[in-house]
Amino acid sequence: MSASSPAEAARSPGHAFASVFALLGPHLQELDRFLHSQLSAFEPEIRAMADYCIDTSGKRIRPALAFLSGWRGPDRVSPDLVRVAAVVELVHLATLVHDDIMDEAEVRRSRRTAAREYGATAAVLLGDALFAHALNLATQFPTTEVCSAVSESTRRVCAGEIMPTLRRGSTNITRADYQRIIDLKTAELFRVSCFLGARLAGFSAEYVDAVSRFGRHLGIAYQIYDDLADFFGEEKRVGKTLGTDLASGKLTLPLLQLMERLGPAEREILTAEILGQRPVQHGLHFRQMQEHGIFASVSGEVMSEVEAAAAALEPWPDEAPTALLLGLCDVLRSQVAALQPGS
Amino acid sequence: MSASSPAEAARSPGHAFASVFALLGPHLQELDRFLHSQLSAFEPEIRAMADYCIDTSGKRIRPALAFLSGWRGPDRVSPDLVRVAAVVELVHLATLVHDDIMDEAEVRRSRRTAAREYGATAAVLLGDALFAHALNLATQFPTTEVCSAVSESTRRVCAGEIMPTLRRGSTNITRADYQRIIDLKTAELFRVSCFLGARLAGFSAEYVDAVSRFGRHLGIAYQIYDDLADFFGEEKRVGKTLGTDLASGKLTLPLLQLMERLGPAEREILTAEILGQRPVQHGLHFRQMQEHGIFASVSGEVMSEVEAAAAALEPWPDEAPTALLLGLCDVLRSQVAALQPGS
Repeated sequence: MSASSPAEAARSPGHAFASVFALLGPHLQELDRFLHSQLSAFEPEIRAMADYCIDTSGKRIRPALAFLSGWRGPDRVSPDLVRVAAVVELVHLATLVHDDIMDEAEVRRSRRTAAREYGATAAVLLGDALFAHALNLATQFPTTEVCSAVSESTRRVCAGEIMPTLRRGSTNITRADYQRIIDLKTAELFRVSCFLGARLAGFSAEYVDAVSRFGRHLGIAYQIYDDLADFFGEEKRVGKTLGTDLASGKLTLPLLQLMERLGPAEREILTAEILGQRPVQHGLHFRQMQEHGIFASVSGEVMSEVEAAAAALEPWPDEAPTALLLGLCDVLRSQVAALQPGS
Repeated sequence: MSASSPAEAARSPGHAFASVFALLGPHLQELDRFLHSQLSAFEPEIRAMADYCIDTSGKRIRPALAFLSGWRGPDRVSPDLVRVAAVVELVHLATLVHDDIMDEAEVRRSRRTAAREYGATAAVLLGDALFAHALNLATQFPTTEVCSAVSESTRRVCAGEIMPTLRRGSTNITRADYQRIIDLKTAELFRVSCFLGARLAGFSAEYVDAVSRFGRHLGIAYQIYDDLADFFGEEKRVGKTLGTDLASGKLTLPLLQLMERLGPAEREILTAEILGQRPVQHGLHFRQMQEHGIFASVSGEVMSEVEAAAAALEPWPDEAPTALLLGLCDVLRSQVAALQPGS
């Protein structure tokens, strides 16, 4: 499929992922070049550490959203979009550096986390330096708009990430809490990536608004999908490793729905497991999830957010980004379908 | 001493501290009001935590530098200066929240640290949220200049703080390393506070530059003074609690100078103590510091930076901030004199 037929790419679910990202090849290469060129801005003493964090193996979803939302055609890579893609990616990388300290994670993307490599203390400061540089890059536009939007989003992302830490080891998280948490911690940065891409490309205020709403719904859908994959991903099928979220006491939508549907005795047992008072019975809960139709129910919620994302763009079929962004919806639909137990 | 005679206040060492800060009473009150008004910008879920961090018992040195550097007279409190004072104070508070996690500090300013109160995980994110909001406030000026300067300074402060963490448990820090660390971790935010105060008040580029150099030298002087006070402060006189820096393996100027002056055998013992391989002999090192004239030598370095700060302003005796900023030099001179053993 050629890079010059984005609309065609968007209409071919399954192949959509490769197609959309093939389109963005030159953009993502330019982004990597730009990110590496930024290392010289860091003080020499921390440059190697910053380099370690700016690795190129990530999915670059937020930069992709910025590039696609500002799409004007395949022929040019806008320096403004490259810069803003770097801003949102650096904010995301900074949050990963801090997340990995808190989760005591050893490995991310097949290499040691910054916290493991340099120690937790240095990793806190390194994350701070990445945040600071992201916001410094955001000031390198003619107006304060980019920096204002990104700093506000960053604060909201942090707020969303604090909430579950305050309640970890508690089973009192409601569905409304879960919605609010993922809206802040994931959907916010998706939204602002789309907003800034479209805004910098000079689209109308109405279209920028539509693209922003698209980004928010796609972010919610993506996070629910990610939480679903924790229970139904490839290596979870055998029922042995079901739910690293469950084991770490994180309450996500699949677990919340299971709790709602279990009888009182079963719910009490699951609660005790979440609180770390009993060993986790992976096989049992995998069977319970199947019995209670949790996959269908949660994947239905992903799909409904994907539809809401697509609906935001419906009035704008002819704007260049629309077909590409709808292609991302297809990507997510395919990914959910691939999780289907027995698929 | 009336608030209308700043020049007189500046020429009265000893009383200078109270006088300069009395002048700033209305400004610091306005700052506190402004900081509290900012709480509503934080997401409801983290507002109480942000409130806890924005306490009013700090010394507010960086805001004072911004207000004094932008001084045009006692009669008006400029909203721009209040906003920028809030920005530098929030950046400073965020670094304190993160510092206290890393130092495992339990108490700061007579109350539990945020890390102790909310847990290290929440404190990492809370510090991030404070940083993000500081930079968001910095975008609320007509141009990107404030946000650009503050985000760059923040990155430099982080770099300065990472360096000693990478070398903790090592005695290989040179004087040049020490100078570089304090230049970044302390002097940078002093410098930018002065720079922004003078800049927002509309002073000439030459004077803004002079005031910035003043701020940098004052920051270096202040940090060396602070490190000196760790060994010669009020409660250290009895020789029992000498050097919490020594006990935590931090190499500061008094220790570096002592190391240089000890014979090989004594140096080996001190090195082993710094590396945590032997219990710290507080009384012994206090006597060694006295024998080797460490107080005189280190306080000489403070004074020389204070003089460099004052010299930066010498060509500008008639600008309104000059006398007040020179008053801060007197404050620091008095504070050093008060540390003098036997004083």
